[in-house]
Amino acid sequence: MKNLPLKIADRSFDSRLMTGTGKFASNELMRDSLVSSGTEIVTVALRRADLSGGDDPQADILKFIDPAKYLLLPNTSGAMNAEEAIRLARLAEAAGLPKWIKLEIHPDPTYLLPDPIETLKAAEVLVAEGFTVLPYINADPVLAKRLQEVGTAAVMPLGAPIGSNQGVVTRDQIRIIIDQAIVPVVVDAGLGAPSHAAEAMELGADAVLVNTAMAIASDPVRMGEAFKLAVQAGRAAYEMGLPERDLQASATSPLTAFLD
Amino acid sequence: MKNLPLKIADRSFDSRLMTGTGKFASNELMRDSLVSSGTEIVTVALRRADLSGGDDPQADILKFIDPAKYLLLPNTSGAMNAEEAIRLARLAEAAGLPKWIKLEIHPDPTYLLPDPIETLKAAEVLVAEGFTVLPYINADPVLAKRLQEVGTAAVMPLGAPIGSNQGVVTRDQIRIIIDQAIVPVVVDAGLGAPSHAAEAMELGADAVLVNTAMAIASDPVRMGEAFKLAVQAGRAAYEMGLPERDLQASATSPLTAFLD
Amino acid sequence: MKNLPLKIADRSFDSRLMTGTGKFASNELMRDSLVSSGTEIVTVALRRADLSGGDDPQADILKFIDPAKYLLLPNTSGAMNAEEAIRLARLAEAAGLPKWIKLEIHPDPTYLLPDPIETLKAAEVLVAEGFTVLPYINADPVLAKRLQEVGTAAVMPLGAPIGSNQGVVTRDQIRIIIDQAIVPVVVDAGLGAPSHAAEAMELGADAVLVNTAMAIASDPVRMGEAFKLAVQAGRAAYEMGLPERDLQASATSPLTAFLD
Amino acid sequence: MKNLPLKIADRSFDSRLMTGTGKFASNELMRDSLVSSGTEIVTVALRRADLSGGDDPQADILKFIDPAKYLLLPNTSGAMNAEEAIRLARLAEAAGLPKWIKLEIHPDPTYLLPDPIETLKAAEVLVAEGFTVLPYINADPVLAKRLQEVGTAAVMPLGAPIGSNQGVVTRDQIRIIIDQAIVPVVVDAGLGAPSHAAEAMELGADAVLVNTAMAIASDPVRMGEAFKLAVQAGRAAYEMGLPERDLQASATSPLTAFLD
Repeated sequence: MKNLPLKIADRSFDSRLMTGTGKFASNELMRDSLVSSGTEIVTVALRRADLSGGDDPQADILKFIDPAKYLLLPNTSGAMNAEEAIRLARLAEAAGLPKWIKLEIHPDPTYLLPDPIETLKAAEVLVAEGFTVLPYINADPVLAKRLQEVGTAAVMPLGAPIGSNQGVVTRDQIRIIIDQAIVPVVVDAGLGAPSHAAEAMELGADAVLVNTAMAIASDPVRMGEAFKLAVQAGRAAYEMGLPERDLQASATSPLTAFLD
Repeated sequence: MKNLPLKIADRSFDSRLMTGTGKFASNELMRDSLVSSGTEIVTVALRRADLSGGDDPQADILKFIDPAKYLLLPNTSGAMNAEEAIRLARLAEAAGLPKWIKLEIHPDPTYLLPDPIETLKAAEVLVAEGFTVLPYINADPVLAKRLQEVGTAAVMPLGAPIGSNQGVVTRDQIRIIIDQAIVPVVVDAGLGAPSHAAEAMELGADAVLVNTAMAIASDPVRMGEAFKLAVQAGRAAYEMGLPERDLQASATSPLTAFLD
Repeated sequence: MKNLPLKIADRSFDSRLMTGTGKFASNELMRDSLVSSGTEIVTVALRRADLSGGDDPQADILKFIDPAKYLLLPNTSGAMNAEEAIRLARLAEAAGLPKWIKLEIHPDPTYLLPDPIETLKAAEVLVAEGFTVLPYINADPVLAKRLQEVGTAAVMPLGAPIGSNQGVVTRDQIRIIIDQAIVPVVVDAGLGAPSHAAEAMELGADAVLVNTAMAIASDPVRMGEAFKLAVQAGRAAYEMGLPERDLQASATSPLTAFLD
Repeated sequence: MKNLPLKIADRSFDSRLMTGTGKFASNELMRDSLVSSGTEIVTVALRRADLSGGDDPQADILKFIDPAKYLLLPNTSGAMNAEEAIRLARLAEAAGLPKWIKLEIHPDPTYLLPDPIETLKAAEVLVAEGFTVLPYINADPVLAKRLQEVGTAAVMPLGAPIGSNQGVVTRDQIRIIIDQAIVPVVVDAGLGAPSHAAEAMELGADAVLVNTAMAIASDPVRMGEAFKLAVQAGRAAYEMGLPERDLQASATSPLTAFLD
């Protein structure tokens, strides 16, 4: 299905489905799921990638993500504040990763919700240092606006808490963020089913990020494809424009002059 | 995307997207949309098809639907009671159409909601006459059960009023119907966006029927494809099993041992 | 709080909260909850009332409901078809109960959903025999209309399955029923919290019936009062007319000329 | 209805319904609505109150709010940033108003959504100066937590944009805020109907603030009473504990041994 390309900073992408790399049963399964999902942007937790040359069992994850095929998007998951996130971003750059950063700062271990204050602080520093910054945020329209004014390349409001599979529960605020956006809006977290991803796209999101729902599926490769199709379908519908909802019915078949 | 085939009566179908033929701007556009949607079951209002050899401007609709490629499913739209519906079904058979009938009896001109009493009555007669009967009904689990006991080949509960584009507002009752079904459940009416179709499939519907949302789209051919993808995605997710929704978050990235 | 009276058949009531009598821990608790709820219409399962003079442990429930204070509304709960329901109604009349009947026919033991066909059949017979009939139905607007044409004194569509505490999940169809009604509409079943009852009233329901949520509350007497207040509040709001929902904000405080 | 008292800072209140003073057709109507609502905390935009002795037509609003009966809660509505909000708060104190402040900083004129960064900044300053601070915020659990750590006396997350009458669309995040709160949580903005207020209370909010829905009602005095009842009902239900929602039904009447 041919939709408009997604443009973030100076890059253009055919796919509007970003994927995460956590929770897959194996790196091989992850690699194959990325392929089936058609994704072109893959986020990796910096903790998981072997930046230090150490012996982390997941250390070789980067070997399974071909940099010629995917934009590798390092993320700062695990950072509790701006300082830790900035430090992680710099480490990633020093290790030769792309100078793009998905900014995730969530001090809360239960709901993993992002910290608005620390996120803005880190964004200011990293944008100034020349990073292409994509902040993960609560669905807060004012924060989204301020981050865009600071110069982030996108904003990534959550649909629901990470891994909760609840769908776009923040739809009313996502709608406002989209209405006011001057950079791409990526709905991140909470999308547990293809219909959730399609709905986010129909609302006008420029892209979505999916991880848990693919990684823990009974067949991650097939689920990757399912999300690919749903995102394409939702985006196409958005580009065409969807009709208003109507409380009344409207006949699809002629009702008059019946059998006369 | 390869999903399990849909079986209704003695027929098997690869596509789980049924389509209607009303409201398209032209028969050519309708024909091309059927192709892009991948549908294999196409419903036609008997009033619209030229059964009588008259000069209805839409009379030649059947020329645009290749019976070798599609199962033509005549519907009784416009019937106000069982008697009219039965008469229409017999006319269709006499005209050489397949002995399948989508039973639609909606006396109410505003919301086009189906009449449970007349529908059951007509189903009893038509099943006895050897028709393969697919009744359009309110999302009423007890009625759905009774129709199945009578011998209908499927049940077609509505997601929302026809042409209302509201999505699966009856989801809680659709869920019960699916839970108790011994024949395919087809969600019909109200599906205004690809995400709605995907959601219906994820709930466990065996198929969906879409008409208005495709026919009135700014690009019906493209919208046909969008619905095709959404239905495939939703069905695949259902076959794999979707995770429970969770109020809490669940980390996708390692949160411990940060930068130690 | 002073709202318009509820009129059903030839009776007028100040309270718009009907209550059931099942599941209370004791008859004393039930009696006190009826008082605190302000109800004037109390439904009793005919099986539970001692019509036969037998030794049912709950046989004396009627002693706890003062007929001078409450309209006792016998119900046919437990009836699997029209015949059983009709038989129960006649027994109730023979036993000297009011010639009012809440018609409940639910053959399905899991979801206790009502049977539309049998309900209409029984309603026709009982209306003809002079009963004031209040049928419990699925939220099916066409069925609701047909029952009113038969002469029922009200219709009682469900908000959600009995005892499920889910609230008004059928709100879109309840709205249509109300829009087309010529007799009072009573939302029955599924109302698990005061906010659910208030919402039903705000939608324009003429009354609600609550049982489980009161009976199983940790303090049924206090919960009875809570529902009373919620029903009054919702009704008052309906009578005044509620504003439309708006996606945008609208300032309550002056925003211009700030501190000039 | 007797519920537990609400405690904020060193004060205790019987009513859990706070009210605003904007948009009423007259000061007399406002005064009478406050009485009928039973409120004990009334917020006033500092712009509206005549702090300067000027000739604002609404300048005498304070004459209609008896400080012996109500806690007057000045708000900073109209402030675009922390500096303006702080300046307003100090003006209010200098003018002899209570040293309580409802912190509202919304730079966005369309949706009037609060600014998280400026709100935290202003809260830090005002708490340090000895104000009892109640910040109006987006339903952001991390921000809510940070404000509580700074020492605010409550947090006031929005249910929906001001004046939008949409209800508690942020319910999932409100639930998390309540779950983590160490000070009272007051749902503010968006509550357009009594059922919305009841739902917020049932979720566990300590109080709600209502303005538009009362002020623009066809009968504000009666609507004030309706909200009073709904808040009492919702709170009582919360204190008793509400049952879980259930997809299945649960009989209220005996279903076995029917008519044997």
